[in-house]
Amino acid sequence: MDTNAVLDLMWIVVCGILVFFMQAGFTLVETGFTRAKNAGNIIMKNLMDLCIGSLGFWAIGYTIMYGDSISAFIGSPSLFFSDAENMHNLFFQTVFAATAATIVSGAIAERTKFTTYLIFSLIMTVFIYPISGHWVWQGSGWLTNLGFIDFAGSTVVHSVGGWAALIAAFLVGPRIGKYTNGKSNAIQGHNLLIGALGIFILWLGWFGFNAGSQLAISGDNANAVAGIVITTNLAAAAGALVAMFVSWGLYGKPDISMTLNGALAGLVAITAGCAAVSPVGATIIGIIAGVVIVFSIEFIDKKLKIDDPVGAISVHGVCGAIGTLLVGVFAIDGGLLYGGGFHQLGVQAVGVFAIGLWAIATSFIVLFVLKKTIGLRVSKEEEVDGLDIHEHKANVYND
Amino acid sequence: MDTNAVLDLMWIVVCGILVFFMQAGFTLVETGFTRAKNAGNIIMKNLMDLCIGSLGFWAIGYTIMYGDSISAFIGSPSLFFSDAENMHNLFFQTVFAATAATIVSGAIAERTKFTTYLIFSLIMTVFIYPISGHWVWQGSGWLTNLGFIDFAGSTVVHSVGGWAALIAAFLVGPRIGKYTNGKSNAIQGHNLLIGALGIFILWLGWFGFNAGSQLAISGDNANAVAGIVITTNLAAAAGALVAMFVSWGLYGKPDISMTLNGALAGLVAITAGCAAVSPVGATIIGIIAGVVIVFSIEFIDKKLKIDDPVGAISVHGVCGAIGTLLVGVFAIDGGLLYGGGFHQLGVQAVGVFAIGLWAIATSFIVLFVLKKTIGLRVSKEEEVDGLDIHEHKANVYND
Amino acid sequence: MDTNAVLDLMWIVVCGILVFFMQAGFTLVETGFTRAKNAGNIIMKNLMDLCIGSLGFWAIGYTIMYGDSISAFIGSPSLFFSDAENMHNLFFQTVFAATAATIVSGAIAERTKFTTYLIFSLIMTVFIYPISGHWVWQGSGWLTNLGFIDFAGSTVVHSVGGWAALIAAFLVGPRIGKYTNGKSNAIQGHNLLIGALGIFILWLGWFGFNAGSQLAISGDNANAVAGIVITTNLAAAAGALVAMFVSWGLYGKPDISMTLNGALAGLVAITAGCAAVSPVGATIIGIIAGVVIVFSIEFIDKKLKIDDPVGAISVHGVCGAIGTLLVGVFAIDGGLLYGGGFHQLGVQAVGVFAIGLWAIATSFIVLFVLKKTIGLRVSKEEEVDGLDIHEHKANVYND
Repeated sequence: MDTNAVLDLMWIVVCGILVFFMQAGFTLVETGFTRAKNAGNIIMKNLMDLCIGSLGFWAIGYTIMYGDSISAFIGSPSLFFSDAENMHNLFFQTVFAATAATIVSGAIAERTKFTTYLIFSLIMTVFIYPISGHWVWQGSGWLTNLGFIDFAGSTVVHSVGGWAALIAAFLVGPRIGKYTNGKSNAIQGHNLLIGALGIFILWLGWFGFNAGSQLAISGDNANAVAGIVITTNLAAAAGALVAMFVSWGLYGKPDISMTLNGALAGLVAITAGCAAVSPVGATIIGIIAGVVIVFSIEFIDKKLKIDDPVGAISVHGVCGAIGTLLVGVFAIDGGLLYGGGFHQLGVQAVGVFAIGLWAIATSFIVLFVLKKTIGLRVSKEEEVDGLDIHEHKANVYND
Repeated sequence: MDTNAVLDLMWIVVCGILVFFMQAGFTLVETGFTRAKNAGNIIMKNLMDLCIGSLGFWAIGYTIMYGDSISAFIGSPSLFFSDAENMHNLFFQTVFAATAATIVSGAIAERTKFTTYLIFSLIMTVFIYPISGHWVWQGSGWLTNLGFIDFAGSTVVHSVGGWAALIAAFLVGPRIGKYTNGKSNAIQGHNLLIGALGIFILWLGWFGFNAGSQLAISGDNANAVAGIVITTNLAAAAGALVAMFVSWGLYGKPDISMTLNGALAGLVAITAGCAAVSPVGATIIGIIAGVVIVFSIEFIDKKLKIDDPVGAISVHGVCGAIGTLLVGVFAIDGGLLYGGGFHQLGVQAVGVFAIGLWAIATSFIVLFVLKKTIGLRVSKEEEVDGLDIHEHKANVYND
Repeated sequence: MDTNAVLDLMWIVVCGILVFFMQAGFTLVETGFTRAKNAGNIIMKNLMDLCIGSLGFWAIGYTIMYGDSISAFIGSPSLFFSDAENMHNLFFQTVFAATAATIVSGAIAERTKFTTYLIFSLIMTVFIYPISGHWVWQGSGWLTNLGFIDFAGSTVVHSVGGWAALIAAFLVGPRIGKYTNGKSNAIQGHNLLIGALGIFILWLGWFGFNAGSQLAISGDNANAVAGIVITTNLAAAAGALVAMFVSWGLYGKPDISMTLNGALAGLVAITAGCAAVSPVGATIIGIIAGVVIVFSIEFIDKKLKIDDPVGAISVHGVCGAIGTLLVGVFAIDGGLLYGGGFHQLGVQAVGVFAIGLWAIATSFIVLFVLKKTIGLRVSKEEEVDGLDIHEHKANVYND
């Protein structure tokens, strides 16, 4: 293998390792933002996303996503991917697939059956995610052909996870005590410090997520990689800072949870355009995400009364969609503000809408069938006592 | 230095940094799986493994392991390694040495004297580990000459640590209250979430542990590195998934601790053969490890009545040995299933047995002497109150 | 871009990502070593250091530090750095700037107004830190011209943060109940395990901090990088080990907090000379730092009666200064022990003194003005109840 190929492979492996670590970040955010009595269940769900994702994506998901295109819609599946010259690509895409599944677990935390979740996680990893992913990232999918830009997956990964989370949270229903007399009651997370550590780990992993999506670092890719690291960092910083100020204005105090989610909102939003926008553009995208996240979380909770304990729908679904659309505005090459007219923005809207529809329709069908068969939800008693003791005969905290 | 050498050095340094971080993972697993009153003592033991390991391996251990071979048994020692062209190798091997010592600390947690542990940790790092390591990794050791394969250390690192842990746990005896009336009583860990974070960090670091052991990434090494990352990840995923199902069958519920240990079991087991087996082979090795770990932990606890609070003997000793043997079965080049006959399997058995014997004999002698002199165990009062308050005049948790 | 340039850029980006993660480490150390009731406030301060630092350093700080020199004193500022060929440098320097600000937060934890802190953090990042940084790292600053050596920032980053922390802790005053009847009362941290994880993360990140400061890895830089990793690791190990033994001698038991701070002390002290000293020299520097840290923390607490909850002044200020001076003793090229006479030591003293004076004077002016206007300190009621509930209307821990 020549030096450039080695450099590119090394970069993809290093970035894949960083993205792998995001699973720890998600686990900490989801456990920290929810109650102690369900922490073990969340650990198990996140760990299983990784395990099922790793095995399932290798077994078949990868070729559904990246196999030779059938009608620009789906890859030709083959079992147990074993091309020794593409193991780095398999690894990098595997950790992405595991991320998409994990997003859902947060939104339906504290009341969902473990078995049901495992089945959904498998279907997400080997079917829902790779098919819409094929449309954008395989190279000859129909959205690629249309000119849709989603560099690292604001839509392909995050909003797919986010819309599935919306459907799942809707179908599984709110936690007991969340809405009483038409009012939303705050259910406090049990450990914001663990949640904050999760955010730092996610931010860390996101450098791999976005800059690894260049899929190369040799030659001219190097400056592109460095540029992506900067746009990613600026959007996250702006998202957190702005969400803090917005929450300060709304609630009278700088809110910790909102600020932490603001960082994620900026990260999700910049993921589509991290290679296409300038540092200034990235900062503005982060600012927009920081405003949107606060109002979106409020709206979904207080108006739609959909119970999303960690704000996953807003962070990944809403900010993923908005970030993808904003590529049409801020892309240096073809964006509205750079004289490109409305063309790119229109294409972005088509992609966001099509993939949103796909994620919503498929999740709905799968989860509806699961609901009518084995059920989505634990018993009232299990929910009140905590899932850990009933589903796993264990407490996370002792002494 | 030419470009290929730079690439290789960079890879070794990056992987060494990942392996370094495994010390944090071990610390979290060991503290999380034990009681709060001993968490500070465990922190100190793990931190000192790293400190003593770093200083001791540099001071003399490295040359005992990698110095010119004396009779294929031991390297020629020299003090304070200072070859400016091999600092990357020193670093990578240092963090491995620290790992071997750390394995022991978990098995004897909650009742062992701190001073005694420090002495044992030093002897482990500068004597026990480097000598058997010399047999396999120096290039002209007697097990290398025999054709023994232990790519990244299922036996060299993990089972050495695991067998020393077995001897140590046997000699130090069970914790007060662990076995009463011939029955094993569960002593719950105080924070499984911290334990789970530890598992994620270990899994992360294992990519460096295994893929770094290629000791190069230039040219054809690149695809080998990527292949190792995949075999490592698949074995871990299979180990956790299968351990979960086995525990589900045995106990009626998917057990959190067993599932977490299943991931480690898969990682330890694949370490020997990560570069020698296919992705399918790696998955099967992970599956086997996932079954073995549950029964091994049960057997050591309930039948042998050896008290190992974190399952270190089973994870590192048993799965390390089994993973090493399975190289003789699944190695694409020379494995039983690939038409290689029983030769490689026999060689693997010799290596596993010889190194096991070495680790058991030397640990026994050292620990027996320590037991008869300064003692292995804290007083009953100290154990009941917790080691933190007596050994360190501190509590880890306040407020 | 040619291969060597790609290698160098990749190294800088990877190291920058590691340094980024140090923010998580600082957050954990500072929260773990303080009380639960203020953990949310500390999370917010650290996260905002990163956000303000990222935005502020990009917006103007970077060019104040690295812009064309005006009289060897300050760079020519320009807004919103956008040189696409230097984004890796911007990233690496950004995470350094954020570190300098973060150091202060620990020393004034548990009693400082959030708004005041945000303003100070901004001034630190865009004014105080980049100007003295310019003197040493821009290439034509007056201390560079003098021959001052501070390879990775014992003085430029750590002691600037440490002296600002000294002034801040002095001006804000001790926490309620810290000193009564002329006696210093220990105020226990609420979670030393989280603090210990923070130390591991900082040690991890420090490999990027120091070895990334080579700013290259191609050609002969590779061995230099590996050497830095070793000197960094040895100094940290020696610092922790020695601080443990010193505390053991002083207090009768190996102290957990002191040992953890000993690792940091070694890391801070080796930062200036990591590329200039031998492994033996690094170990001795670590040993010295391990002794100094214990007595310095005792002195500042018990004699000066300045309340620094995490020991930041001693770790970063004192050990930063001492480590910088020791370059004049242990530098292989020009150090006192290598026949270089007192010249380098004298130059080091000038640099330590000049930058110390700068940090002290500017912090004093800024913080004095803030004290007289919006105030430094929360009300007595807020402090007693905890900053989280008053400043953020939240508790970090629930259930």
